[in-house]
Amino acid sequence: MERARDKVLMGVERRSVALTDLDRVNCAYHEAGHAVVAALLPLADPLHKVSIIPRGRAMGVTMQLPEADRHTYTKGYLEAQVAVLMGGRVAEELFMHHMTSGASNDIERATDIAQHMVCEWGMSALGMRAFRKAGSAFEDDRAHAMSEATARRVDEEIEKILAGGYETARALLDRNREPVKALAEALLDQESLEADELKDLLARTGASR
Amino acid sequence: MERARDKVLMGVERRSVALTDLDRVNCAYHEAGHAVVAALLPLADPLHKVSIIPRGRAMGVTMQLPEADRHTYTKGYLEAQVAVLMGGRVAEELFMHHMTSGASNDIERATDIAQHMVCEWGMSALGMRAFRKAGSAFEDDRAHAMSEATARRVDEEIEKILAGGYETARALLDRNREPVKALAEALLDQESLEADELKDLLARTGASR
Amino acid sequence: MERARDKVLMGVERRSVALTDLDRVNCAYHEAGHAVVAALLPLADPLHKVSIIPRGRAMGVTMQLPEADRHTYTKGYLEAQVAVLMGGRVAEELFMHHMTSGASNDIERATDIAQHMVCEWGMSALGMRAFRKAGSAFEDDRAHAMSEATARRVDEEIEKILAGGYETARALLDRNREPVKALAEALLDQESLEADELKDLLARTGASR
Amino acid sequence: MERARDKVLMGVERRSVALTDLDRVNCAYHEAGHAVVAALLPLADPLHKVSIIPRGRAMGVTMQLPEADRHTYTKGYLEAQVAVLMGGRVAEELFMHHMTSGASNDIERATDIAQHMVCEWGMSALGMRAFRKAGSAFEDDRAHAMSEATARRVDEEIEKILAGGYETARALLDRNREPVKALAEALLDQESLEADELKDLLARTGASR
Amino acid sequence: MERARDKVLMGVERRSVALTDLDRVNCAYHEAGHAVVAALLPLADPLHKVSIIPRGRAMGVTMQLPEADRHTYTKGYLEAQVAVLMGGRVAEELFMHHMTSGASNDIERATDIAQHMVCEWGMSALGMRAFRKAGSAFEDDRAHAMSEATARRVDEEIEKILAGGYETARALLDRNREPVKALAEALLDQESLEADELKDLLARTGASR
Amino acid sequence: MERARDKVLMGVERRSVALTDLDRVNCAYHEAGHAVVAALLPLADPLHKVSIIPRGRAMGVTMQLPEADRHTYTKGYLEAQVAVLMGGRVAEELFMHHMTSGASNDIERATDIAQHMVCEWGMSALGMRAFRKAGSAFEDDRAHAMSEATARRVDEEIEKILAGGYETARALLDRNREPVKALAEALLDQESLEADELKDLLARTGASR
Repeated sequence: MERARDKVLMGVERRSVALTDLDRVNCAYHEAGHAVVAALLPLADPLHKVSIIPRGRAMGVTMQLPEADRHTYTKGYLEAQVAVLMGGRVAEELFMHHMTSGASNDIERATDIAQHMVCEWGMSALGMRAFRKAGSAFEDDRAHAMSEATARRVDEEIEKILAGGYETARALLDRNREPVKALAEALLDQESLEADELKDLLARTGASR
Repeated sequence: MERARDKVLMGVERRSVALTDLDRVNCAYHEAGHAVVAALLPLADPLHKVSIIPRGRAMGVTMQLPEADRHTYTKGYLEAQVAVLMGGRVAEELFMHHMTSGASNDIERATDIAQHMVCEWGMSALGMRAFRKAGSAFEDDRAHAMSEATARRVDEEIEKILAGGYETARALLDRNREPVKALAEALLDQESLEADELKDLLARTGASR
Repeated sequence: MERARDKVLMGVERRSVALTDLDRVNCAYHEAGHAVVAALLPLADPLHKVSIIPRGRAMGVTMQLPEADRHTYTKGYLEAQVAVLMGGRVAEELFMHHMTSGASNDIERATDIAQHMVCEWGMSALGMRAFRKAGSAFEDDRAHAMSEATARRVDEEIEKILAGGYETARALLDRNREPVKALAEALLDQESLEADELKDLLARTGASR
Repeated sequence: MERARDKVLMGVERRSVALTDLDRVNCAYHEAGHAVVAALLPLADPLHKVSIIPRGRAMGVTMQLPEADRHTYTKGYLEAQVAVLMGGRVAEELFMHHMTSGASNDIERATDIAQHMVCEWGMSALGMRAFRKAGSAFEDDRAHAMSEATARRVDEEIEKILAGGYETARALLDRNREPVKALAEALLDQESLEADELKDLLARTGASR
Repeated sequence: MERARDKVLMGVERRSVALTDLDRVNCAYHEAGHAVVAALLPLADPLHKVSIIPRGRAMGVTMQLPEADRHTYTKGYLEAQVAVLMGGRVAEELFMHHMTSGASNDIERATDIAQHMVCEWGMSALGMRAFRKAGSAFEDDRAHAMSEATARRVDEEIEKILAGGYETARALLDRNREPVKALAEALLDQESLEADELKDLLARTGASR
Repeated sequence: MERARDKVLMGVERRSVALTDLDRVNCAYHEAGHAVVAALLPLADPLHKVSIIPRGRAMGVTMQLPEADRHTYTKGYLEAQVAVLMGGRVAEELFMHHMTSGASNDIERATDIAQHMVCEWGMSALGMRAFRKAGSAFEDDRAHAMSEATARRVDEEIEKILAGGYETARALLDRNREPVKALAEALLDQESLEADELKDLLARTGASR
């Protein structure tokens, strides 16, 4: 079942594998990482499809999130979404034994969520205080006249949320290695799995929290 | 009387409730939180209506505040208004056992009041000193050339006001659980309560400071 | 003589007084505070009229200051003007037992004077050094590349001036309670007093430094 | 000889002197302060006229400086010019026993010279290092990305120069009280003195370093 | 084999060599530095040509990097690229016993990679946190409202990556002095070497990790 | 041989010399300072002419530097150029016993070189790290979001380079007083010296490192 990955990892060492093959395997494990975390966290949005068919700049996509702002978000839901976003890179580390720049969009989105939680939604130890106008974008980091003391605490709270999401993803994927590998190999084989296929695969491989 | 809430809370755990139902229950408790605090603080503006009929982006509204600047505001009034604004989120925490992003507008308005109190109206330990021009907006945080030492003190004073309002709201709602639940369920039932209906309900359920 | 104030203060507790009445009484004491400080400080500009007839946004006005920049200002004159500006809020605290946002314009003007004294006119322990161009406005706080160490000292000096003016006003009004109350009640009665009427009233009630 | 000043100082206490008379006397002593320092410092530009005839916003002027940048300036010349600029305010303090805002232009010019000396001309303990482009204006304070550590040292050096100039002026005027008073009274009498008249007066009254 | 370099180094001391000859020799050793590091690091992009024929502003070029963003980059690849970029300056230091400004473009590109790794790609001890928007340019350093505490850590991580790359290059070139000298002299002789010629030369001179 | 300088120095004390004469002598020693340092440092660009004929704003010029960027610069060359730039002011201090603002252009250029060395060319203890884009101008000081810790180190390194250049120039000119005086007097006499005349004069007066 792990033939594609092993072949590629050996090939990298011998410089005998094309980069595109390495990217393809990496993408499969990356998406599998997102998908397994999403499937196992009850508060995360349910999955409906996983794919490694390239779309524009993104190499693969785990279709999960509804459009922003249609509902109010609970803190538990947001924490789950951060963990899902971390899942791709965690899978790269655990299964491909490397890190790629392909996680940059996940990292930005996860940080954006954390910034909203701390700076606008009062979901940190800093409590109910707005550090920027509601509805700000990622780059509207925070009021620039904030004291250094406050800026440091805001940074610490953002860091806690991101580290927490990372740890959650890591624990889940470490405990569910077989499901991840099975899903990655299935993606390399089929390129795309629908929600029910994914559900069956995870049940079959004993995926659990 | 708490059937709607219990049904929804159980449903969340089993993923068997539609998000819109959860939002609706959350909104009812959120508005009930604002309303009960407003009713029990003598210096706050009196209520004239509570509703959970969605209006544009806001899911519900507790109609209370007059238009800004028509009167001069006393410090006691402003502190009461901050507590009222905190009431929605506090109710979410005490009764729904979660936090939602729906409090973002309340958080911004409460912070805006606190900033005015400290930076323009001399209502803090920093006394009678203007840290920005009178009539500034939320994002005109403060003069950017202020020393770090002063910026830290301004932050601390803003924090005291917000923490004080949060504590006031928490104490009131914790002491008035039955009235809050009764009001929330009434809103889920009727969608809207006028001032006199609200008054009766609160008297009936023994609401008190 | 204090019937209007007592009536209003009791009414506030019982929510039986209209806000406009409270504002009117507050305005009378606020203006009386400015006027008594101005009358008792020899270096302040002389008064020529006190009124609580609303003019646009301001609820009342103590007509005292000449147009800016027609003369050079002495340090003693400026310190007296700061104390006069503080007088309104001090009266609110001593006689109405509250603080209102109505002092925001006084606070900004007092801070503006203090900033000029420290940053342009060499009237502080920091001596003869310009921290911004001569003739700067309130919001041209100071050169933004100033070191934190210097910014802190500038803030401390501005604070000393404002605190000094506040203390001066407080001591004067605390020592002249009868004159203040008499003037406030007269304003509630007549709405306006000319310079000579004011002078008589203060003499009659034993106003003194 | 000091009749005009004494009359005015007594009048201030009794509120019996018009402000314009106080300004006129202040102006005479202020200009006398500049002139005596300029006359007694060999490296300063020579005087050619002293006047208290108002010109636009300035109440009086000591005509001394050539147009900027026609020659290179030595450090000794610049230090002397700073002391001359301080002379007006020092005279206010020593002879009028007050400070006025009339010194604001002197303070800005003195600070501007000090900033040039430290930030462009390598005339401080910080040595030969440019902290801003040659030919910068007063408000182009310094490179804003400079470290706090460096900004503090730049501030300290600017302060040393200004304090040094202030002390030089103070020592000179304190030691030459009769010449200053004589010159001030002559200005109040004549309004204007040419270079030779000034020279005679100073010789006559024993002016010396 | 080192006749060209020795001639030039002696000539510099005696001011008897034309600058253009010194630049040419420097360029040969600089490019040889890049090339040997690239050849010996398995994760770096393979070389296909080395040349010292001037192209516009650059004096020589080691053609190695594919166009940006066509693949996702692994951390190991990026670290190797940083070491390759450092190779030119390291060769200058080890073989020419000097440093030139010709390394400025290498330094900027290496810093740019390190900034991406830390601020966008989560490839440092700071983990998965975005410090600026994905796809930012070199000069979009980082969010300017970041706390000083965080900015310091970001600087430290960037420094670690650059220092690591420098050390890797230094160790490799120090251990491969003969191959570097041989390649430099060949470039001075031929001006250009294709991939296979380079490979032969390195094998012949015993180049190894 | 020093008659012109002595005459002028005595004249300054007695205010009997025209400023233009003082400027002229100062200029001669200033240019002599640059020229002697340039002549004695082997890595500096060779001189081809020294002149005190005024050109526009500059009073004199030592023609030495080729146009920027035509070659790559070595660290040793840049350090020598900094010392040459310092030479003018050092001569003012050693021989004219004063400092003039005429050194402002030299100070800016020397600082500009030091900034390039530290921030773009990796020629300091901070190593190979770019603190601003290659090819930046003097006023593009550095990335403004750099941490204070890093900014301080950048300032320290810039300072080391400038202090080093100053010390080098000082040691050279202090050891070569006769050559400097001879050259200055020759410039006052002839206004201009060509390269070979300069070479003869320096040999004749025993100029040496």
